[in-house]
Amino acid sequence: MTSSPQSLHRVNYAAPRSFGTLLKANLKETLFPDDPFHEIKNEPISRRFLKGAQYFVPIFEWLPKYNFKLLKYDLLAGITIASLAIPQGISYAKLANIPPIIGLYSSFVPPLIYAVFGSSKHLAVGTVAACSLLIAAIIEGKVNASDNMPLYLSLVFTATLFSGLVQTALGLLRLGILVDFLSHSTITGFMGGTAIIICLQQLKGMLGLKHFTTHTDVVSVLRAIFHNRKEVGHLSKGINPSSIHLLNFDPKYISAPIKAGVIAAMISLAEGIAIGRSFAIIRNEQIDGNKEMIAIGLMNIFGSFTSCYLTTGPFSKTAVNFNAGCKTAMSNVVMSICMMLTLLFLAPLFSYTPLVSLSAIIMSAMLGLIDYDKAYHLFKTDKFDFCICMAAFFGVSFISMDIGLMLSVGLALIRALLYIARPATCKLGLISETGLYRDVEQYPDANGIAGFLILKLGSPIYFANCNYVRERILRWIRDERSHTISKGNEIEFLLLELGGITSIDITGVETLLEIRRCVQAKGIKMILVNPRLGVLEKLMVTESIDTITKESVFLTIEDAIDACRFSLKCSDHIKTENLAIV
Amino acid sequence: MTSSPQSLHRVNYAAPRSFGTLLKANLKETLFPDDPFHEIKNEPISRRFLKGAQYFVPIFEWLPKYNFKLLKYDLLAGITIASLAIPQGISYAKLANIPPIIGLYSSFVPPLIYAVFGSSKHLAVGTVAACSLLIAAIIEGKVNASDNMPLYLSLVFTATLFSGLVQTALGLLRLGILVDFLSHSTITGFMGGTAIIICLQQLKGMLGLKHFTTHTDVVSVLRAIFHNRKEVGHLSKGINPSSIHLLNFDPKYISAPIKAGVIAAMISLAEGIAIGRSFAIIRNEQIDGNKEMIAIGLMNIFGSFTSCYLTTGPFSKTAVNFNAGCKTAMSNVVMSICMMLTLLFLAPLFSYTPLVSLSAIIMSAMLGLIDYDKAYHLFKTDKFDFCICMAAFFGVSFISMDIGLMLSVGLALIRALLYIARPATCKLGLISETGLYRDVEQYPDANGIAGFLILKLGSPIYFANCNYVRERILRWIRDERSHTISKGNEIEFLLLELGGITSIDITGVETLLEIRRCVQAKGIKMILVNPRLGVLEKLMVTESIDTITKESVFLTIEDAIDACRFSLKCSDHIKTENLAIV
Repeated sequence: MTSSPQSLHRVNYAAPRSFGTLLKANLKETLFPDDPFHEIKNEPISRRFLKGAQYFVPIFEWLPKYNFKLLKYDLLAGITIASLAIPQGISYAKLANIPPIIGLYSSFVPPLIYAVFGSSKHLAVGTVAACSLLIAAIIEGKVNASDNMPLYLSLVFTATLFSGLVQTALGLLRLGILVDFLSHSTITGFMGGTAIIICLQQLKGMLGLKHFTTHTDVVSVLRAIFHNRKEVGHLSKGINPSSIHLLNFDPKYISAPIKAGVIAAMISLAEGIAIGRSFAIIRNEQIDGNKEMIAIGLMNIFGSFTSCYLTTGPFSKTAVNFNAGCKTAMSNVVMSICMMLTLLFLAPLFSYTPLVSLSAIIMSAMLGLIDYDKAYHLFKTDKFDFCICMAAFFGVSFISMDIGLMLSVGLALIRALLYIARPATCKLGLISETGLYRDVEQYPDANGIAGFLILKLGSPIYFANCNYVRERILRWIRDERSHTISKGNEIEFLLLELGGITSIDITGVETLLEIRRCVQAKGIKMILVNPRLGVLEKLMVTESIDTITKESVFLTIEDAIDACRFSLKCSDHIKTENLAIV
Repeated sequence: MTSSPQSLHRVNYAAPRSFGTLLKANLKETLFPDDPFHEIKNEPISRRFLKGAQYFVPIFEWLPKYNFKLLKYDLLAGITIASLAIPQGISYAKLANIPPIIGLYSSFVPPLIYAVFGSSKHLAVGTVAACSLLIAAIIEGKVNASDNMPLYLSLVFTATLFSGLVQTALGLLRLGILVDFLSHSTITGFMGGTAIIICLQQLKGMLGLKHFTTHTDVVSVLRAIFHNRKEVGHLSKGINPSSIHLLNFDPKYISAPIKAGVIAAMISLAEGIAIGRSFAIIRNEQIDGNKEMIAIGLMNIFGSFTSCYLTTGPFSKTAVNFNAGCKTAMSNVVMSICMMLTLLFLAPLFSYTPLVSLSAIIMSAMLGLIDYDKAYHLFKTDKFDFCICMAAFFGVSFISMDIGLMLSVGLALIRALLYIARPATCKLGLISETGLYRDVEQYPDANGIAGFLILKLGSPIYFANCNYVRERILRWIRDERSHTISKGNEIEFLLLELGGITSIDITGVETLLEIRRCVQAKGIKMILVNPRLGVLEKLMVTESIDTITKESVFLTIEDAIDACRFSLKCSDHIKTENLAIV
């Protein structure tokens, strides 16, 4: 492995890529990481048009190939989920404090829209408990449902419209990245907290109370139960009436539907996409997050025009759909037709579903949402993830749904920022008889090399962590010196292994130069090893490479060590010669 | 380099570190990256106490060694900066809409406090233009200075107290990390924008206008100049009176001093620490950011009790102090004594400094703050940093100081989050005749190996980027397949080089398992190469390593390739044998 300094591997100093090339590459990675148009790149223009249409409207892709065999499966699955949609629709509408019929309407129009635009084969469309409660909690802050139901209902529809607009916009702008910031831990905690709140709210139905609190925290709900003492809704026949005239943009109330709409949009997307993805993975298929957002967004926009409130892909319904053997989004169409028949002929029958039994249905469903095992798994394996989960759980249970969610997302963001503000550095040593340089903490048989301090840096270096990186490197040198001085080995070279650094900003480049100045003042030479493309380009563009010198950059640690030893030998040789001359 | 599969380098599967060990290590890296107590670790208890006192109160360290030779330098430097402190103090007090005498008071008490607690030898204490204007802009939003000066002044002192408390708390909690989030680019843009605003405000003095706008944006100021049409302040003798009784915590006004205090605290820390650090680096010394915060915080707390407003280490004064040859913080004491003499005997003289000349002094100083070269450098080398700078510049110039600052910091945070949300991945190839695996884009002579796809991942893998990482890896496979299928080489192994990944969370681990399932369905085996300590520990704690199997984890790419080829040969052999048997 050891090679003479003449046969060093060469670092590639090709001219940096142009700004245009870089911008294009970065935008592509940020917004189109899945390269959505890869299939149509090499097609003739006429087929591009067809493929493009199939890309944006997936029904064009699967409907032409649809056959009777597939329909048998989808028919069964569709009827099964319709039988679930009726009690769930009524129950969740109760959570949202809106007339039960709205819950049934919401399982008619949105599934049809999803069947056209959705890319998941298994997702079953419907209302969800968490968002129903969230919308109710925020809008009740402005208008009391029992005092002014028409106004309350109009704000719920307006919130649904905002959700749909936000979701469609996120999908069109390919900002699925925002949904990624809702981590599994946050969702687990949020669902658990919401389940607790919903169960407590159901005590209202089970105990037959009428006047109740609109606050969602544990303390308020328990107080309300102890302070208060039946009624059955009236369901009329007919399919969804138009609700466009009900949309309410009155500046006096607008803040509530906007807030409810935006938060519910994010949560329902996170839930819908995560669930669609989980089932797609089981079948080794892929779903496109951005397309899903557009589909969910469109179904909420059309939903808000046709007396539906917020819908997404609920876990329970989707799991039932999957297990009933659905093959395509046609099962949603079947459910939709079943719901239409129900609305036209059977709706009045459901007026007699007693509140107590509805509450019991909701509670049993909700208790299943508290995922003890997951929480225990988080506790055992990652304490910070556990804290993020608990922040959502207790925040939602004891403060409010939006604050709990924000607390948890905030903690997750702080963790994300800490990752980059405190990038891990480690000292590398040579594992005896291998020629491999590895972390001395991880591989205790890796030994340092006399005269050299080899550090491996990780993560991008930039303004938020450059002070830390400088201090940490200087501390490594100080620690190393205090260990080696006793042995008489002074550090002469600081080797920075940059292979793990994907990018660097101006402040980061300045920091590298500062580190170089600081160690030089201590008589140590700084050597860079294996800088990646983005880092090397930035060093060249800023002309810092001229200060660092190209002779101090190597492709491998071995090359750097060989060259440093060679230069030491030469200078020793010159010293000896000078002494001889003197 | 090629070794037979028998002599593979062994991955270290030692038991993961305990939660306590990990927590201690993480807390140390986050809060004490500079290991502040390293000097007293191995000292006897009595010396520990002395060293500890010297650590927290730096004057104990340098004063005993202080001698007459050092004093000569500090005396000269101190008198020089005092001569600068008088016009600057008066001018900046005008910016803050407070009586000029407060500006002089502010150069008496705070420098004394700093001399005791500060760790920089060069920092000269004084008021700064940007924060003076910022405080005025926020407090004028509540109370007009010309309408009710006593109330206005009390709120300025209260804001100073809040700044001091925030700064001291940040230092004690070792949260210097927060200040790191104000990048050089943000500061450059903010200073430039502030300079523009201050220059426009000075038109008031130069044109002799009295009624003026309190808004700080360009449009409002220009409008005010065209609408309006002198007065000289009265300066009384005597040193700082107490202002404790003036501190105002009236809930009606408290929001303004809190907001002004917190924002000004962050900006003045960023400015003071950055300036102290720059000069320390020139002399190859180090200053402790957290100690500096405590010193600056204490001087503002005591300042608010003694009729001073916000002080930090202004660039102009510090540069003059450094160039005048200061050796220790004693120069601040000398300046403070000069200011005391001025306050006692000379103050009334300065009443006659004409407003026009003051405005001219401020304007010439301010124009120097607009750093065109830096902005051009940013534009040439990093377009995103340039945008962050311009957001601060135009935000401060055209909207308001706090919004401009928040816009810029927000952009910088988005960039930080994008770094981790879109971690760079690259395909590695073998550089011919070297045995090195490097990025094929960076080293075009690196060639892929038939049957293998080797990807290098960077940055931590966790909730915010795991969807991206999965999609991106699947895209690499798709792209690779579309290239290789024509050549008849199917990918059989996916090698993930994890050396650049410093940590992974639960969602990240789940993603690795998902990737494994996805590629397995395509007939590809996933192999992990060189996982670092934190990653390997998390794989072991979550027991995912049992799914991935320890046989699929290697220490080097060569080992992995050799082992894979060996297993292929074996299976081919078995196939051939089976065929022979058949």
